[in-house]
Amino acid sequence: MSVSKQPLPVMHPVAGLRLGTTCAGIKQEGRRDLVLMALDEGAQVAAVFTRNAFCAAPVRVCRDHLGKTAPRYLLTNTGNANAGTGEQGMHDALACCTAVAEKAGCATAAVLPFSTGVIGEPLPVAKITAAVPAAFDALSEDGWEDAAHGILTTDTVPKGASVQVAIGGGMVTVTGIAKGSGMIRPDMATMLAYVATDAAVPRAVLQACLARAVNRSFNRITVDGDTSTNDACVLMATGRAGVRVERPEGPAFEALCEAVGEVCERLAQGIVRDGEGATKLITVAVEGGRDREECLQVAYAIAHSPLVKTAFFASDPNWGRILAVVGRAGLAELDIDAVQLFLDEVCIVRDGGRAPEYTEAAGQAVMARDEITVRVALGRGEACERVWTCDLSYDYVRINAEYRT
Amino acid sequence: MSVSKQPLPVMHPVAGLRLGTTCAGIKQEGRRDLVLMALDEGAQVAAVFTRNAFCAAPVRVCRDHLGKTAPRYLLTNTGNANAGTGEQGMHDALACCTAVAEKAGCATAAVLPFSTGVIGEPLPVAKITAAVPAAFDALSEDGWEDAAHGILTTDTVPKGASVQVAIGGGMVTVTGIAKGSGMIRPDMATMLAYVATDAAVPRAVLQACLARAVNRSFNRITVDGDTSTNDACVLMATGRAGVRVERPEGPAFEALCEAVGEVCERLAQGIVRDGEGATKLITVAVEGGRDREECLQVAYAIAHSPLVKTAFFASDPNWGRILAVVGRAGLAELDIDAVQLFLDEVCIVRDGGRAPEYTEAAGQAVMARDEITVRVALGRGEACERVWTCDLSYDYVRINAEYRT
Repeated sequence: MSVSKQPLPVMHPVAGLRLGTTCAGIKQEGRRDLVLMALDEGAQVAAVFTRNAFCAAPVRVCRDHLGKTAPRYLLTNTGNANAGTGEQGMHDALACCTAVAEKAGCATAAVLPFSTGVIGEPLPVAKITAAVPAAFDALSEDGWEDAAHGILTTDTVPKGASVQVAIGGGMVTVTGIAKGSGMIRPDMATMLAYVATDAAVPRAVLQACLARAVNRSFNRITVDGDTSTNDACVLMATGRAGVRVERPEGPAFEALCEAVGEVCERLAQGIVRDGEGATKLITVAVEGGRDREECLQVAYAIAHSPLVKTAFFASDPNWGRILAVVGRAGLAELDIDAVQLFLDEVCIVRDGGRAPEYTEAAGQAVMARDEITVRVALGRGEACERVWTCDLSYDYVRINAEYRT
Repeated sequence: MSVSKQPLPVMHPVAGLRLGTTCAGIKQEGRRDLVLMALDEGAQVAAVFTRNAFCAAPVRVCRDHLGKTAPRYLLTNTGNANAGTGEQGMHDALACCTAVAEKAGCATAAVLPFSTGVIGEPLPVAKITAAVPAAFDALSEDGWEDAAHGILTTDTVPKGASVQVAIGGGMVTVTGIAKGSGMIRPDMATMLAYVATDAAVPRAVLQACLARAVNRSFNRITVDGDTSTNDACVLMATGRAGVRVERPEGPAFEALCEAVGEVCERLAQGIVRDGEGATKLITVAVEGGRDREECLQVAYAIAHSPLVKTAFFASDPNWGRILAVVGRAGLAELDIDAVQLFLDEVCIVRDGGRAPEYTEAAGQAVMARDEITVRVALGRGEACERVWTCDLSYDYVRINAEYRT
C-alpha cells in the first residue's frame, strides 16, 4: 500500500525554456537519465544549494559558474551523484559542461551541472558526453513531462506542478519539476527541483522569491532526516510573458512569490508522498510555541522519530510515543501538563494525560487514513510551524538495504 | 540473524541486597513481570533519571521519595510504563509503594517505584498489589538472574554484569542488571538499570561515582534516538564488604568508579546488542575533533542516520552515506577534504575522496562482521568520543509496528 500519489498535472510550457531528455545508459540501458534545459538569452537564474559541508562536485561547479556569467544550459544526470569523488569529480563535472558548451557555442561557465544517484563512484563522463547531442535534438518547450521522468532515481512517480496567475495585467506561468524520495531533509533546497517562470525578474529579486518559496516548502519536509550532498533548487525567469517584477516587494512580487511558493509546496509534498516506502503523508503542526524555532524543533523531532513513524505505518494511535518525543525535544521549562495532542480532529491528550472522552476506536479511525495531521499545542505562546513527513515501513528498509545491489 | 548476545555471566550476590521476582499477570499470564529489591538498613542509594520533560509518574515519585528518606525497597513492574497517565498515574504509583510499605512495616517514602512498558494506559494496580506478597516470599540474595528476566519488555535476552575488585585491602563486589532495547537514547540513564555494591559509600560519593559511570556507558548508546520517559539507573551500596569509600577522589574512589563503570559499560553494550531488530553492534568512534562535544555531535548523527543503519543491515559498505552525515552534522568550518573514514582497519576515505588502495572487497569483508567500528578522523583537533549503536532492520519496523497488537 502506498499514500495516494498525484498524477502529473497539466504542465504549462514556459516560453523561452526548452527541455530535452535522453538515455545515456548510466545505470540501465533504455532508462531516461539525462536532461538538458536550454534558456533563451536574457533569462535570469536563482539557485539554492545543500548546506551539507560534504557537497558534491556539481554543486561546487554550479556555485562557481553562477558567479561568472548568466547560465544558458542546465545539464542533469541521474544514476551517479558525483559526490565523494575528490578532484576527479570536479574535472568530470567540468568535462560534461564543456561538452554542452562546445555543442552550443557558449562559455563553459554558462552551463550548470547537476547529478543525483549513488555517492562515491566515478562519473561515467564518456556515456554522458556521448548522449549530449541527443539531448540537444530533443529540446522542446513541451519537454516538461519527459524531464520530470528523466531526473528520477528511487522515486516511483514524477513530480510536477504548474500554475498561471495574473500579475500586473499580464498572465504569468510558473511550472516546476522535482525529484527525491530518500536522503530527504533539505537544508535550503531539496535534492533537485527546477522551477521556471516567463515573468521578467532581475536576479536579486528572483533569489529573494526563491528563498521565500523554499522556506515554506522544501525546507519543511523530511523523509529520513538525511540531508543530501546534492540538494539544489533552481528558479529560472525567461521574461517572455511581458510582465516585469522589478522589486522584492509590492503586489507583483507578492503575487509571484505566492505562485512560486504554491508550485514549490506541491512539489515538496509530492516528494514526501513518494518518500521511500511511504504509505502515509503526515503533516506535523506545532502551535502555541514561544517562537517558530521551538515549534520547528518539536515538529522535526516528531517527524524524525522512528518509533512515531513505525506507529503510523502500523496505523496504531500510540500517542505515548508522540508525547515522549515532545518531552525530549529540548524545550526549556516545558510544562507537559499544558500540552495538548490531536490526531486530525480527535483530541487525545489534555492536562498531562489521556483526554477523558478519547476512545481507542476514534484514534484508530484517524490512523486508518492515508493523510493525517498530528497537531501539538504547546500552550506557551503564539508561534506555529508545520512540516511534512511520511511513515517508516518495511519498504524503507528494503529500498535502502538493496540500493546498491 | 542477530548480533551475538552475551549469556548472563556469573552474578555475584551483593550482601545486604535481596531480590524477589514473581508473576503479576500484568500483560501475560505466567510471565515474570514484578521485581522487588530489599536493602538492609544503612544502605545508600544514588540514582539518575530521564531528562525527558514528559517523565513517567514513577520517576516523579522516585525523585520525591529520594529527597525524603533512605530507600529500603525498589519495586519494578514491566508491561506498563505508567506514563502519560496524569494525576491518576501518581496515585497509582504511590498505591504500589504503600502496598510494599504496609507489608514491610516501613514508610511509603522508603519505597521507590519503577515501571516500564506501554505508555498511556492505566497501571493495573490491583494486579500489582496482589502479587506483592509473593515477591516478598521470593526475596533472596541469589535472586539476580530471576530479576534480570523479570525487568524485560521487548528485550530478547537478560542483561547482567558482575565484577569483584580489591579496594583498600578488601574485596568489593559490583553486580548489575539492565533492561531496554527500544526507545533507547538515554539522557542521564538508560531505561532501567540496577547496580549494587557491598562497599560502604556515602550517598554523595555514590552519586558522583554513578554520574561518572553513566557518562561512559548508558549515555553513550543509542538504538533509535528516542529517549524514554522512564529511564532510570540506580546504584546501591550496602556497606557489607567492610570496605569504605569515603571521598569522591583518591585510589579507593577511582577503583570503585572503574568497577561500576565496567559493569555499566557491559550492561549498556548488552542493551545495544539486544536493540530492537539489531543484527550488528556498531561502535562509532570520532577523533581529531576540536572538543568532545563536536565529536559526540558527529558520532550521534551517524548513529541515528536511517540510511547508515540500513546500509549496515545490508552489509553494504555504502560509505558515501556516512560522509554525507559527517557533512550535515553541523560542524562549523569543517574541511571535508581533511576527513578520513575507516571501517575497522580499512581506510576508505582520504583527501575528500575514496582512498586509492580501497577495494569494495575489503569494505565488504568488514561489513560481513557482526561487530564493526566506524572511525571518523576529523583532522582538526585532539578530542575524541565514541558511542555504540546497532543497525536498522526489517525486524525493527516489525517489532515497533506490532508493539501494541
